[in-house]
Amino acid sequence: MGDQSVRIIPLGGLGEIGRNMMVLEHDDNLIVIDAGLMFPENEMLGVDIVIPDMRYVIERRQKLRGIIVTHGHEDHTGALPFLLRKVWAPVYATPLTQGLIEVKLREHNIRDVNFRPIRTETPISLGPFEIDFFRVTHSIPDGVGLAIRTPIGTIVHSGDFKFDYSPVDGQRPDFAKLADLGRAGVLLLLGDSTNAETPGYTPSEQEVGQTFERLFAKAPGRVLVATFASNISRVQQVIDTAGRYNRKVAAVGRTMVNNVRVAMELGCLRVPDGLLLPVEDINRLPPRQVAIVCTGSQGEPTSALVRMAYNDYRAVSLMPGDTVIVSARPIPGNEEFVNRTINNLFRLGANVYYDELLDVHVSGHAAQEELKLLLNLLRPRFFVPIHGEYRHLVLHAGLAEKVGIPPQNIVVMESGEVLELTRTSARVVDRVAEGYVFVDGRGVGDAGEAVLEDRRILSQNGFLVASVTVDSKTGRILAGPEIVTRGLVYSQEAEEFIEGAREVVEEVVRVASPSELRGRLRESLIDYAYNEIGRRPLVVALVMEV
Amino acid sequence: MGDQSVRIIPLGGLGEIGRNMMVLEHDDNLIVIDAGLMFPENEMLGVDIVIPDMRYVIERRQKLRGIIVTHGHEDHTGALPFLLRKVWAPVYATPLTQGLIEVKLREHNIRDVNFRPIRTETPISLGPFEIDFFRVTHSIPDGVGLAIRTPIGTIVHSGDFKFDYSPVDGQRPDFAKLADLGRAGVLLLLGDSTNAETPGYTPSEQEVGQTFERLFAKAPGRVLVATFASNISRVQQVIDTAGRYNRKVAAVGRTMVNNVRVAMELGCLRVPDGLLLPVEDINRLPPRQVAIVCTGSQGEPTSALVRMAYNDYRAVSLMPGDTVIVSARPIPGNEEFVNRTINNLFRLGANVYYDELLDVHVSGHAAQEELKLLLNLLRPRFFVPIHGEYRHLVLHAGLAEKVGIPPQNIVVMESGEVLELTRTSARVVDRVAEGYVFVDGRGVGDAGEAVLEDRRILSQNGFLVASVTVDSKTGRILAGPEIVTRGLVYSQEAEEFIEGAREVVEEVVRVASPSELRGRLRESLIDYAYNEIGRRPLVVALVMEV
Repeated sequence: MGDQSVRIIPLGGLGEIGRNMMVLEHDDNLIVIDAGLMFPENEMLGVDIVIPDMRYVIERRQKLRGIIVTHGHEDHTGALPFLLRKVWAPVYATPLTQGLIEVKLREHNIRDVNFRPIRTETPISLGPFEIDFFRVTHSIPDGVGLAIRTPIGTIVHSGDFKFDYSPVDGQRPDFAKLADLGRAGVLLLLGDSTNAETPGYTPSEQEVGQTFERLFAKAPGRVLVATFASNISRVQQVIDTAGRYNRKVAAVGRTMVNNVRVAMELGCLRVPDGLLLPVEDINRLPPRQVAIVCTGSQGEPTSALVRMAYNDYRAVSLMPGDTVIVSARPIPGNEEFVNRTINNLFRLGANVYYDELLDVHVSGHAAQEELKLLLNLLRPRFFVPIHGEYRHLVLHAGLAEKVGIPPQNIVVMESGEVLELTRTSARVVDRVAEGYVFVDGRGVGDAGEAVLEDRRILSQNGFLVASVTVDSKTGRILAGPEIVTRGLVYSQEAEEFIEGAREVVEEVVRVASPSELRGRLRESLIDYAYNEIGRRPLVVALVMEV
Repeated sequence: MGDQSVRIIPLGGLGEIGRNMMVLEHDDNLIVIDAGLMFPENEMLGVDIVIPDMRYVIERRQKLRGIIVTHGHEDHTGALPFLLRKVWAPVYATPLTQGLIEVKLREHNIRDVNFRPIRTETPISLGPFEIDFFRVTHSIPDGVGLAIRTPIGTIVHSGDFKFDYSPVDGQRPDFAKLADLGRAGVLLLLGDSTNAETPGYTPSEQEVGQTFERLFAKAPGRVLVATFASNISRVQQVIDTAGRYNRKVAAVGRTMVNNVRVAMELGCLRVPDGLLLPVEDINRLPPRQVAIVCTGSQGEPTSALVRMAYNDYRAVSLMPGDTVIVSARPIPGNEEFVNRTINNLFRLGANVYYDELLDVHVSGHAAQEELKLLLNLLRPRFFVPIHGEYRHLVLHAGLAEKVGIPPQNIVVMESGEVLELTRTSARVVDRVAEGYVFVDGRGVGDAGEAVLEDRRILSQNGFLVASVTVDSKTGRILAGPEIVTRGLVYSQEAEEFIEGAREVVEEVVRVASPSELRGRLRESLIDYAYNEIGRRPLVVALVMEV
């Protein structure tokens, strides 16, 4: 091993969507690629965000040579505030990526980060790793992939990518560099699998612009477009189309306003003078001269669009004749939120266009033919699919096999596992991280399963608390029993139920010995609830002795 | 009004998917069409099923002339056990529909229901309503639509339908009857809107058979097909394909076993002798001779497929080389369950095929061109879109306008509203039901919102209970404080947090007057939790005096 191997450790993003983070290790040198967050699944009750278990890096912080961020999406940047509190290392990013990270860091009160610019014409050296960058097209501008020259060979990390031959920002994929890399020899490709189940090619981002064109042309009143605040290319197309139809544009929603400002400052968003107005000013214009670009495309409860849908947003009131374009696809788990929002927009009389009806969204990830194209360009010796749920990784592995990579050279890994790569082999040798790290309120915890299991029971059946004070000598009841239930019984049956529970407590206190009283109370109340109403609440019995 | 009008009251199914139920009322006569359930949204925490508020019918039970069930799906039959406990009226159904209802009623211990057969050649009379039935094609055999002759004109209820020109059971749509109805004049059409956002035509159910054919042909081991137990046509295609490839079939999962048995008894499912085996026997055959049709296509946690995916199903253990076909589309809200199941099936080494990859499912509902075809065949004077979320109703209304129905003759209603229909007008005049009725454990409640709100808080932040016994004379603490939290703090911070809460209680007891003690304790503990950990649990303070 040692000199002759590189260890590749995905701390997140494999077997799941989001919280992408990759560690490369050689001798006493670590580099990190991306540090993202994941939005909690519906079953992760009460959790705000989920981040990778980063202890492996934190414990080796002296060996960390740098953090490289491929692009500015939260699933690649959202764990940086938590990482940068624990480690000190230069952060490499392109201008837009850096700008968006800085917005996030300010919210977390983190300053004095050692940012270093990424330029595709200038490789960087981090210990034994020499890293060359290539431009990729994705649903955010200024993204890169990495060609990492190591002592044993070149490792290519695709970043998040698609092959958009006509990207909105004009920055086309760098096929020449990819072909050169392939000719020179690639030892390992780490390739984005997010869309591995989609046949064919992902359409160009410009396709969405053509739909915008049609909808703006026929819109009788205002046009509102909801999209991800980070999707600067989509925002650019709203601005361009609005300009052509003589509409002014307002950005609405905190993140949207921030990101638009940053992208404009960095020249990543081109806005003609006077086109962009504050929302207060735009409301004075006639509806046919107004376009609004806003947050809320995932039905997030506190977002601008959702509050408008419930008539709860002071700055913008929807009215019949408004055209609303929901320019995104729901992330799995958000479908009900998005559906509800769309239904309410229709109830307010808006003309609503969304993904099922019209091509108002395209993906930022490569579909099957593009994945095969990348594999053909690079012809790697070994292949590890990254960025995707388990099924995406397996399907991507199947594509790699189809284009001629021998099955024994393809490794489907999961987050937390360690791949040991040599010039002639690639195999999983260890596991250094397991499970999720939850960020919840102000806490960052890695032992949350018990708490989540309690929340699951509480969410289904509520709780019942019985409290009683007994005489320590006679064992007789001095005060109580007090019975409190929440989330358990509907009001019409509650009184009778609670009276019955009180009788259960009195009876148990009468017959049980002091040492077993608490346990017996719990069991009897669990049985009582199930017999009476067929539910199993969380039961707490408190016995105080005086 | 009176003689000159018919009142049409959807008690469910408009503005939502499921719990379909329609009341028609003329003078002192009511009929009910369908009485279905709805599966709870993710936010309806702990709720088992949702049914219509049926009080309007129950209060008028003397006037109820009959209950007509269009087909055997649970979203049209699932509330019958609750309705039939409260009213006595004949239930009209086709043989398969009746068979499936009887299975459900037996689970609820309901017998002695007055079933009457529906025959498409024989109209029935219920008070002033004469009802003629027409065969429709849907994702279950033996479904019907209704032509209801009333004193003011003919009302057509489409049931759930698509136009499948080559249905698996050979029972083609009855275009002659529909055309006759249109020629004779239709006053009102109530039309299925479920797929109103899908352009074009829904493919024939037989398309799925062709995919099955390809997958069975190349499957190296067993083939498992998960689908809705009620989708008898899909099951038929599994059986037909298995027969052609010399595989025996086992039905797995309680509902699947029951439905297959009922459908076979009624001749709605044709199975060659010896093809269907109990699951115990099929396990003795070589994998290439085995096909299994099972429940679990929605990722339901206790279903056969999901338990197999977690290696928790005694009768069937999955192995590498098995082919699993998930032959359904996730109902909105179930996506995460389905995704997780598919990922785990891949982890077990199965070859998994599902909706995103291949045409292993087609819808049972009419797409836009079919909806326009029905409108063209019937040319109704008035039109009310039914069965769908609000957006589907609005989009269906838009289609009706496109085919020439004047906008003022199209009414988009919601569940609980009352449409008054005369020969020359149709308008919403009243609302007789609101909200949802939740079935939860053994309770059927209509005032569940407070309980659900408590469950929402508990699911996010858990609870904190503080209990203390004080001396009624001195106000001093005699026992406690006892502090219990669940679902609130992660273990590593718990001890310190609870100690702090105890100090808060002691301090408040010291300074607060007895009358305000409970309220002050609650407030102080809420503040304490928020300041310490940034969360707002449900707080209960119990004070006992001795």
